[in-house]
Amino acid sequence: MYTGRKISSAVIKRLPRYYRYLGDLLDNDITRISSKELSEKMNITASQIRQDLNNFGGFGQQGYGYNVEYLYNEIKKILSLDRTYHLIVVGGGNIGQALVNYTNFEKRGFVITAIFDVNPRLIGMTIRGVEVYDVDRMEEFVKHNKVDVAILTLPRSQASEVAEKLASWGVPGLWNFSHVDLHLPPTTKVENVHLTDSLMTLLYKINEDAAPSSHEE
Amino acid sequence: MYTGRKISSAVIKRLPRYYRYLGDLLDNDITRISSKELSEKMNITASQIRQDLNNFGGFGQQGYGYNVEYLYNEIKKILSLDRTYHLIVVGGGNIGQALVNYTNFEKRGFVITAIFDVNPRLIGMTIRGVEVYDVDRMEEFVKHNKVDVAILTLPRSQASEVAEKLASWGVPGLWNFSHVDLHLPPTTKVENVHLTDSLMTLLYKINEDAAPSSHEE
Repeated sequence: MYTGRKISSAVIKRLPRYYRYLGDLLDNDITRISSKELSEKMNITASQIRQDLNNFGGFGQQGYGYNVEYLYNEIKKILSLDRTYHLIVVGGGNIGQALVNYTNFEKRGFVITAIFDVNPRLIGMTIRGVEVYDVDRMEEFVKHNKVDVAILTLPRSQASEVAEKLASWGVPGLWNFSHVDLHLPPTTKVENVHLTDSLMTLLYKINEDAAPSSHEE
Repeated sequence: MYTGRKISSAVIKRLPRYYRYLGDLLDNDITRISSKELSEKMNITASQIRQDLNNFGGFGQQGYGYNVEYLYNEIKKILSLDRTYHLIVVGGGNIGQALVNYTNFEKRGFVITAIFDVNPRLIGMTIRGVEVYDVDRMEEFVKHNKVDVAILTLPRSQASEVAEKLASWGVPGLWNFSHVDLHLPPTTKVENVHLTDSLMTLLYKINEDAAPSSHEE
């Protein structure tokens, strides 16, 4: 974990994106980059980039630019991505299974260790080597295994109750795909992926621009 | 399409959430609600709610509260959800298939009409009645069928190029699940769902709170 000074949440929000771009550069054997070049790639002003990256020490050198690998590794440390995380999936439906099948997660150190569901047809199955357990066994599992994050991909009617239980068992993070907002004690962190909200926002943007002809069907 | 006065993008961002909560209330046969009750449910201040909802006419009445159904339908109109949208999926992998299998979309008027992929094993298959076509046929399809939104769930190495083509063929909206930021002309709107970025943000929040013992593995 990064032990330097406190970084604002606005900067934190941008770090995964820096991390992604820097990873791309590394994949393409680019070892250094100026804030100007990075600015053009990322569509952020160069001064914003300098300001963001100065937050954790300012790795840029005048006339040389940023050392891509060093910066990548520093951000990796700041985001605490230099360790393995253990995740469980609660709700073995379409989205849950898709996430288990998403091999990129493992490459990044996100390991899904179990899936929980209520459906007898799913229980006992394995999906890419990950077993589906009866949700009744979740408490036991969580108490005997390290679980950093529970991925909630279950119907919204059940999501709040399950989330409260997971929080009470001490699961520190919930990645919430269920179509409901969770109200939990501050010891459990939540990040929402409300897919339908996101699609509705897109549709609004489309319609906002459209001429009255968009009335036609 | 809503033809009233311009609403700020901050308010727009919150409308899908209002819409979701109001839909829940309707499902539970709740016909009216005060801003105070809605505030407690949604974890937004009552004054924020009044301010947001006043933007499009102020449906609240002193001592009565909001008429849930009326408000729901108004927001539906503002978000242009009172019509059917035609979507295509570009990339028939795990996430693409999960979205096709997500029946809630249809209930809301989001109809997926085709899937495009390069994989010969997928081409010709149908997923919940939706056919998978060779990506080579996409241009023809887009030009002869109404496509409001293309859902991009393809590898990031191909995403930018495909997105540029879709934009040039006049597709107004791209819902982007590919792990890349798109730079497109303003006539094509983009909404990103960068899942890994979202998970990284959650992990940061967890670690930010953790005691130094989080160093242990």
